[in-house]
Amino acid sequence: METILNLLVLTPEEREAFQAAAPGLSQRFAPGGRPLPGQPELTEADYAQATVILGNPPAARLGEGCALRWLHTRSAGVDAYTVPGVLPQGARLSCSTGAYGHSVSEHLFAMLLALMKHLPEYRDQQNRCQWRDLGQARTLAGAQVLVVGAGDLGVSFARLCSAFGAEITGIRRDTATPVAGISSLHTLEALDQLLPTADVVCLTLPHSPQTVRLFDRERLLRMKPDAILLNGGRGSVLDCQALAEVLAEGHLWGAGLDVTDPEPLPPEHPLWRQPRAFITPHAAGGDHLPDTARAIARIALNALTCYVNGQPLPNQIL
Amino acid sequence: METILNLLVLTPEEREAFQAAAPGLSQRFAPGGRPLPGQPELTEADYAQATVILGNPPAARLGEGCALRWLHTRSAGVDAYTVPGVLPQGARLSCSTGAYGHSVSEHLFAMLLALMKHLPEYRDQQNRCQWRDLGQARTLAGAQVLVVGAGDLGVSFARLCSAFGAEITGIRRDTATPVAGISSLHTLEALDQLLPTADVVCLTLPHSPQTVRLFDRERLLRMKPDAILLNGGRGSVLDCQALAEVLAEGHLWGAGLDVTDPEPLPPEHPLWRQPRAFITPHAAGGDHLPDTARAIARIALNALTCYVNGQPLPNQIL
Repeated sequence: METILNLLVLTPEEREAFQAAAPGLSQRFAPGGRPLPGQPELTEADYAQATVILGNPPAARLGEGCALRWLHTRSAGVDAYTVPGVLPQGARLSCSTGAYGHSVSEHLFAMLLALMKHLPEYRDQQNRCQWRDLGQARTLAGAQVLVVGAGDLGVSFARLCSAFGAEITGIRRDTATPVAGISSLHTLEALDQLLPTADVVCLTLPHSPQTVRLFDRERLLRMKPDAILLNGGRGSVLDCQALAEVLAEGHLWGAGLDVTDPEPLPPEHPLWRQPRAFITPHAAGGDHLPDTARAIARIALNALTCYVNGQPLPNQIL
Repeated sequence: METILNLLVLTPEEREAFQAAAPGLSQRFAPGGRPLPGQPELTEADYAQATVILGNPPAARLGEGCALRWLHTRSAGVDAYTVPGVLPQGARLSCSTGAYGHSVSEHLFAMLLALMKHLPEYRDQQNRCQWRDLGQARTLAGAQVLVVGAGDLGVSFARLCSAFGAEITGIRRDTATPVAGISSLHTLEALDQLLPTADVVCLTLPHSPQTVRLFDRERLLRMKPDAILLNGGRGSVLDCQALAEVLAEGHLWGAGLDVTDPEPLPPEHPLWRQPRAFITPHAAGGDHLPDTARAIARIALNALTCYVNGQPLPNQIL
């Protein structure tokens, strides 16, 4: 007998749709791990006995002994669950990729335009009641943008840049399928060749053995001296210490980071104090826009329907 | 005999084109009032004897006694030259409206997205080495944007918002000609009725007796409590003291101002210290993007050609 633990944040209508998608199966709703009004708290047994979990349970509540057959995360990243020993042998894993493109790409685009127009430094001046022109700004019109990791986030970001007149090059595994808004696609092998051509480099890569510290000092120095770097994927992709150093040496126009390594960035990290670095606390995605929760619900409902009907799972990772 | 004083910043090729457009006429080039290499400084007589000036001469160098017949400004705003006594009787006045749309609209859009994503406050936190989530952000998707002054700047701004999924209402004198990216057009009389419906209100109005202090305390309070206000036209349109007060009272999500009243904003002005105000020092337009100078050159060259050929002047104000 399947037991579903549904940790998603849902409207009453969405909850009904989830119940209708798995008729006759036991489904417990506990948004973000908190019980619905009038319901008891979730126990360790609730996690251990669930065969299906929709949402992001604490990894410590899972493990070899639990009954889990399928975990569908509300997040797009799944690195917390691919650590050996977290999921029991044979459990399947899928994610809500596609839900965050709108929120994350708008946030990254906001950081990019802010850097282009000196907005972080104008804010610093405002705090000193200082009216002083910081000179030439940058524009996206005609700019070369390199999106490293042209998945959901990267493609959404590319579309926004394209609407402002930029030309976009994308790096992804699948280079055969054309992507609207991206004029040329390459694999990761072309990275070192493409880096010196880009005015803007946007990292939207997941955490993986291939991506860890991909952007080290050497690659940062391959970027144009006045290029802008963004990271909106996973903090581990970029060596934040090396970034602080090259910025201090005068390299790059600026860098906008919504993710860092480590997170939270410790108060003593030199990146905080680089005026051309601009840091937000992993706030681009998550639940920062109401429509993200609606998109997660749609994606998870579709996945549940596939699971119940024995169809292949969309966005399956394991 | 016409004597042209050309104060525009031009490439050598553009300078040749201006010479070719007014063959046989004396034309002195002095970019921004500074002589070309090897040329003498401009004198009072150079200003007084010019019958045509292209660019923005100091108003004090003009006046009833000067020979000026036509002034074409590099700026879009001409308020410095409509003050009685600055231009001699009968002189014509035209401007470079159309040159600043790209630069100003990108800057205003950058300020808008920054406010929507709490970027000014995240910058304040960065300066305290503080990693703290500021909660729900806003999106342009589905937002109602009211552009007050749908001329060159306002229409360019509307197009950017439209690309991000907003719906745009415009206020302008001519409501009969449809404008791409704006779904409905109204005259200024509809302002008070439209204000409570807008998520974003963008002011791109020139200075005029009709626009001075148009946005006073009462109109600010007509805006939605969580609306965002932008001013990228002229500072005099908005009562900055009233804005500081309503922000302090908790009204509005935020306000982004590239123009203020007065300018520069004095250090003791309360607006500097409102965290939900975001101030840049009249840096959206001017020469902050290289392509603005090229657009000004095209517009002024076309105007000079019309003048020389006795055709009506484009963008004529007087």
